[in-house]
This record gives sequence, C-alpha cells and structure tokens, in this order.
Amino acid sequence: MNALEVIGRKRDGGEHPPEEIRFLLEGYVGGSLPDYQLSAWLMAVCTRGMTRRETLELTRAMVASGEVLDLSDIPGVKVDKHSTGGVGDKVTLIAAPLAAACGVRVPKLSGRALAHTGGTLDKLESVPGVTVDLEPDRFREQVRRVGLAVAAQSPRMVPADRALYALRDASATVPSVPLIASSVMSKKLAAGADAIVLDVKFGRGAFMPDPERASELAAEMVRIGEDAGRRTVALVTAMESPLGRCVGNAIEVLEAIDVLACRGDAELTAVSVQVAREMCALAGVAADPERALADGSGLERLWAMLEAQGGSRERPPVAHPARLMVPAPAGGCVASIDALQCGLAVIDLGGGRLRKDDRIDHAAGLVIAAPVGACVRVGDPLVHVHAASEEAAVRALPRLRRAWHLVGEPVTAEPHVRRRVDRDGIWDPEDRPGRLSEQGRGRDE
Amino acid sequence: MNALEVIGRKRDGGEHPPEEIRFLLEGYVGGSLPDYQLSAWLMAVCTRGMTRRETLELTRAMVASGEVLDLSDIPGVKVDKHSTGGVGDKVTLIAAPLAAACGVRVPKLSGRALAHTGGTLDKLESVPGVTVDLEPDRFREQVRRVGLAVAAQSPRMVPADRALYALRDASATVPSVPLIASSVMSKKLAAGADAIVLDVKFGRGAFMPDPERASELAAEMVRIGEDAGRRTVALVTAMESPLGRCVGNAIEVLEAIDVLACRGDAELTAVSVQVAREMCALAGVAADPERALADGSGLERLWAMLEAQGGSRERPPVAHPARLMVPAPAGGCVASIDALQCGLAVIDLGGGRLRKDDRIDHAAGLVIAAPVGACVRVGDPLVHVHAASEEAAVRALPRLRRAWHLVGEPVTAEPHVRRRVDRDGIWDPEDRPGRLSEQGRGRDE
Repeated sequence: MNALEVIGRKRDGGEHPPEEIRFLLEGYVGGSLPDYQLSAWLMAVCTRGMTRRETLELTRAMVASGEVLDLSDIPGVKVDKHSTGGVGDKVTLIAAPLAAACGVRVPKLSGRALAHTGGTLDKLESVPGVTVDLEPDRFREQVRRVGLAVAAQSPRMVPADRALYALRDASATVPSVPLIASSVMSKKLAAGADAIVLDVKFGRGAFMPDPERASELAAEMVRIGEDAGRRTVALVTAMESPLGRCVGNAIEVLEAIDVLACRGDAELTAVSVQVAREMCALAGVAADPERALADGSGLERLWAMLEAQGGSRERPPVAHPARLMVPAPAGGCVASIDALQCGLAVIDLGGGRLRKDDRIDHAAGLVIAAPVGACVRVGDPLVHVHAASEEAAVRALPRLRRAWHLVGEPVTAEPHVRRRVDRDGIWDPEDRPGRLSEQGRGRDE
Repeated sequence: MNALEVIGRKRDGGEHPPEEIRFLLEGYVGGSLPDYQLSAWLMAVCTRGMTRRETLELTRAMVASGEVLDLSDIPGVKVDKHSTGGVGDKVTLIAAPLAAACGVRVPKLSGRALAHTGGTLDKLESVPGVTVDLEPDRFREQVRRVGLAVAAQSPRMVPADRALYALRDASATVPSVPLIASSVMSKKLAAGADAIVLDVKFGRGAFMPDPERASELAAEMVRIGEDAGRRTVALVTAMESPLGRCVGNAIEVLEAIDVLACRGDAELTAVSVQVAREMCALAGVAADPERALADGSGLERLWAMLEAQGGSRERPPVAHPARLMVPAPAGGCVASIDALQCGLAVIDLGGGRLRKDDRIDHAAGLVIAAPVGACVRVGDPLVHVHAASEEAAVRALPRLRRAWHLVGEPVTAEPHVRRRVDRDGIWDPEDRPGRLSEQGRGRDE
C-alpha cells in the first residue's frame, strides 16, 4: 500500500477502506510512517471529516494496538462512565457509588488532570493511602466484590491513542469530532465494559464550545459504542460555570461525600442521580439511585471502594485551610462564573497541571460561596481560596476576580443537562426517560 | 508567535496575515518548525486553499529565502518563458530563439526532466560541449550579447521552495493550486525577468488533469506575477498526446532545429510562434516571429546561444539509431497517443529519470510516425524507438503498444491552445489577440 495514495484519498475528500485505516495506524505506531505523513493525514481528517465506518475502524485499530481488559468473568452488565472533562466535575465519585449501591458493576479506568480540567485519579489520590494503580486481577476482584473500582489505564492499553494524541497536540489537529470521539471510545472499548454512559460537556470550561458541537461529538461516540456492540448513552451538559461548589482535589472528594450524605449542592446532586439512573437503565437494574442516596448506601459504597484501594474512613482527605476570600466588588446577582478561569486559578494554586509530569498539591482548591443565581451585597464572599500559604493563595486572585459576572437583576440558572443522546437520536432534556419515563421517548431533533 | 495557533487558523478556514506566512516559511527553513507541523499546515492549505494575498506573500517569502538575479543592467524588457512540464515539449528551444531574433531579451532559468516529463536543461546537455551552469555575470553577458541564455537555477536561489517541495512530495500535499503557483512563480520572480509567458499544460501527460484546473492554475500564476509587478500572460495548452513528433533529449533538439528550419510539425510550429508572439507583445517588440522563422534568424539565434554555452554547429546532437518500430495492430486513424505512457517509455529507454540523481542517456528517444489524425494500415509504423541497443528498445514496447488509440473513422485533431489568461481574465483561444488582434479583446468567461 502506498502512503501518499492513501493520504491523498482523504485530502481529496474520499473514504478509506478499513485496510487503509489499519495501514496508517499500524505504520505510524510501528515506525514505518513518519510523523510528517501522519500529521498531514490528521489535518486532512480535521478538514474533510470521517465517515461512520472510518471512525469505527480507526477506533478498532487503536483498541487492537494494545491490551484489552477482559471482564467477561464478572457476572452481569458492567457499566462504565466517562466525562469529557470539566471544572469541579466530581460526578463519577457520586454517580458510580450510587449505581454500584443499586447493583450495577462499575469498572472504570480514569484519567488525570490536564490543562484547566480536573482528573478523577488525582482526586482519588488526595485520599491518604489510596492507590489507583490496580493490576487487572485486583481490579476485577474489586469490581466483583465491591461493585466498583476506579483505576489508571495500563500503559499497555491503546498505545496508538497515546502516540496519535501526542502528534495531534503538536500539529494543531486536536479539534476534530471523529478524532476526539475515536480517542475517547478506544479507551472505553479497551476497558471492557458492556455499556457506557458519557457526560459530554460544553462551554468555557470544556473542550466543546457549544451544545451543538457537544451533541455532534456525543452522537459520534454513541455511534462508535453501539457499532462496537456496547450500549452507549450520552448526556450533553453545561460547563460554563464550575459544577457544584468545590474545585480542587481533596476538596472535591469532600464535596462528593457531602452530596452522598444528602447535604450537597442541589444541582450537582440532581445531575449525579441522573447519571446513576442512566447507568442503572443500561444495566437493566430496577433500583432507584435516589433511594441509594437517601439511605446512605451510596456513601457506604464510596468508602468501601476507597478502602479496597488502600484508604480508610479514619483518614479522610484534608484540604488546606481557607487563606483568602474574594469579596463581591459590588452588590448584585451571579449571572455566571467563568469555569476556565477557576480551573486555571487552581493550577495557579498548585492544584492542577499544565504538563503531564507536573506535581500536584492535592490539598489546594476553591470553595464557591456565591454560585450562579446567588445575590450578594458588596463585600460578601464570592469564593474562598484554600492554599498551602497566603502567598500561594494570592496567585489565584487575579483570575478569580475576573471570573464572577454580577448583574443587577435576579438570575435563573439554566438547566445543567441540555441533551440526551442514544442510539435513536438526540433528545431534549425534558423528554429524558429518567425523569419523565411515563411519556416515553420524546421527539427526534 | 504560536505555531499551533497559526496552523489552526488555516485548519479552520481563516486567512493568515503576512507575518504568519513569513513565520511559517522562515521557521521551517530555519529549522525551528518541525516537518510534522509544516506538513499539517500544507495539508490545511490543500483542503482550505489560500487567498490571493496569502499566495502572493508565500511567493514573496520564498523569493526572499535566497539570492535573486539582478538583470537591471540589461537594457529593455526581459521576458522569461516557462512550461509546467509535458512530454515532447521543446517549445522553449523554438520560441525563445524566435523571440530573441525579434529583439526580445530572454533570460531563462530552466529545470530538469522529472517523472514522465522532459526538462530543457537535459535537452541542452545532449548537445556536445554545452553547459547549463552559467555564473550570473556570464549569464547576464550572454543575454546582453546573444539575446538569450538558458541555464540552471543556482542552488542559492529560492532554497525555501526546494525544502517545501521535498516535504510536499513526501506528504501528499503536492496538488494545491496556490502551492503549485507559488512554487513556480517564486522561481520566476527570483530569476529577475520583467515579464513572463507561461505555458500551462493539462491532460494525461501533464500535472493538471483538465483545461478548467489548468486555467485555475494559470490565473493564479498570472495574479501572482502581476501583483509582484511583472507582466504575465499564460497559455493553457493540451498535453493529452505528445507535442510534435519526437520525445527524448538529443532527438528533441534535432526536432527544434527542424522547426526553426521550417521543416517541422505544423502544430508544434504554430504553438511555438504563438508563444514567441506573446513574448514579443510583452516586450513591446513589433517584429513578427513568423518572419524570424521564415528568414532563418531564429535558427541562427539558437545556434548562437548553443555556441555561447560551449556547443558548436560542427557537433550537432546525435540520437541513437532506430532499433525497433511499433507496427499498427490494425488499420485505423490515430484518435490519441497517451503522453504519459510515451514519457514513461522514454524512462524505460534510459532517457528520463524517476529520481533526481538518475543519469540520463541523452541519445535515446521516440520518433512518432503516426501522429494524432493520421490514418494507417495494419503493420504501418506508429513510432520508431531510438535506443542504445535492441535490448534497451524492447523495454519500451509494452507501454508504446498501449499508447496508440486507433479508431475506425477519420479524426480531427483538437486545437492545442485552449485558453489565454492575462490580468484581465481567461479568454477563449479564438479571441486571442495574437491571432485576431483587430477584434481586440474577446468576451470574458
């Protein structure tokens, strides 16, 4: 096969037969195709797109480049959950224990914080003693016994995705829906679950700018999952402002515990329950996550998981004390909080990372005092800054002062979930079966 | 300036400000931008295109990457002539001496054979003693004294074009009108002439597939030339079948001499005179190339040039004898001759090159016995194969047998020149001022 001919096909807007996709990917990973040829092809994909068949084949080829986790000896439907990344997004730490408490098996491989977004692995590591490096046998045993495990992906899984992503990152070929979708889904398919609930975020704190682009990405990922034989559902959710009240690592675990103890932020609680419901639905489990919240079994399941991974409820995560607060510069109501600035502020505090090998201060973070919709008087606290020192806290102030947008009149917060995407199409949130199941399926957009 | 942001602008269909074009080109030539970033950008250009302003800036940046030939001390309007490459294209060897005989100064830097197309430098080197490596002072002196010089481009000129072309060739980013146009025109601008006549070829033996794409390329090159202050005119000509009767090196020089002696192929003669007329028109010279043909002054000027470059009319170029001929497999009329197969057949004979450093047998080539429109009986010769040996000649037979397309009824050859492009637009050949100047400019397409 001739690389120039293959690349030329995508340049001219054509469709690759499956063997050409494999030729490109295997050639690149194997070293016979140079960087400059693959980056040219990636750019052609960015501008010409890929067909459903091509995207599925690329995803499959990435899965085939490494090890695959075999979960077939765990009984029942195993359900994975994945977020495309946001600020203050601790939904996994709430929804996964709720689903597990309802009887769903949740084997989840997760990622780390990068750029302004947080990572579940870093949040877990803020709990003293907890490890996220679980060998496959230990991981399987924990899913079987506890019902859930959240661990790091083995470096032997989907090596092609890592190689491709590094090149995309360095060649301005990241923003392509089929490339993003196949990158995410290759990791989900290799992780071995039977069904997948995706949380696709849009807005200033996310990688997709608006609900339309996020829905497009969600639909592409649902297609890949379903085409690969995994039941897949996606929620499209807003990430204009941070999710919940806390942004950081230890501080977000503490907030997840608060939500599971029924004393957390209402919207965060509602979203987490909805994600857990989707997980239960895919697993064919009838139990209601709302009940697992009310009876404390969800919280119990979170601690069981943390203990299985080396933690102990005698040693909960600890956040730095609040060193500073940002006062409202004038009276008003909070119209929005810039999630990107909040995420970058946490990096300023040492609680996030710009490069893959940056070290993290797990105890640093933000606690939002005035969320979207709140009305404040001049001088009232907008946000408290938890940091190792006052000097560290000061570094985050410029961004945080810019992040709050106050207006003169009362503000009604918009719904957090904007779309639901399944194999039948893209749906309005009001029609979502989880809330209004007696109405059945809504209209197709 | 951030390379990813700049590449992303073209990925998203935006327009680069001039400094971004310079940043990319200087960064690549200087080594600060890696291959894989520039190839991604080149692919974005292939699929998104470039504006007129961007294409001009890219051309200018390539010119600025190396030395420029200063011809300002040569009096009068200096006119260059360039062909985009074809099979049997010896028009330069005829039109340039005719124009010089009319009083036009013709300083021409030329290229070598590559792929199936011939190169004027190789043809000249088939003349015993002739060199194409002229130092700038010798080149200028020859143009001043003889009226024309055809030489190799110095490696110190437009190094950015060479670097870019090598990467395009290896990354499937060759077929882009603005990239091709800026590559050609950067060399023309650096070569220092005041005006340029372009011969843009289309068809099986050319790089552009059809008249529409060739016209688009021609219009882009004319725009660059005019925007850079050089009067530029292009003819769009057919290269479905070889031009004239001979394909090779020595054998094409001999054919050029035949045409200048008024005993050559009629269509080749007509095209060459038309190109010479365009050169005269741009130079503001009133003399008629037809006259320079009839009175032998054009042939005289070709010999004067060859002698100035080391040749002698006592030692004309010599072709190998005809070793084989391809007989007509049946009676019929020649509808077409596949120029690509003829060009590749000459490579089979050793008379062309696939790689830049391949050596050439200048004496090998083809003489067409049955051109387009000719009618033959079974067994009549279609083409004679001139080669070093019968064994060498046999290698070309399979391609040549495939090249002739015979039909049952008489064939009328289509006109060779299909469009004329100048700063006012693209014109039908019937309206071209060179033939029907009393009608003035024709209708704008």
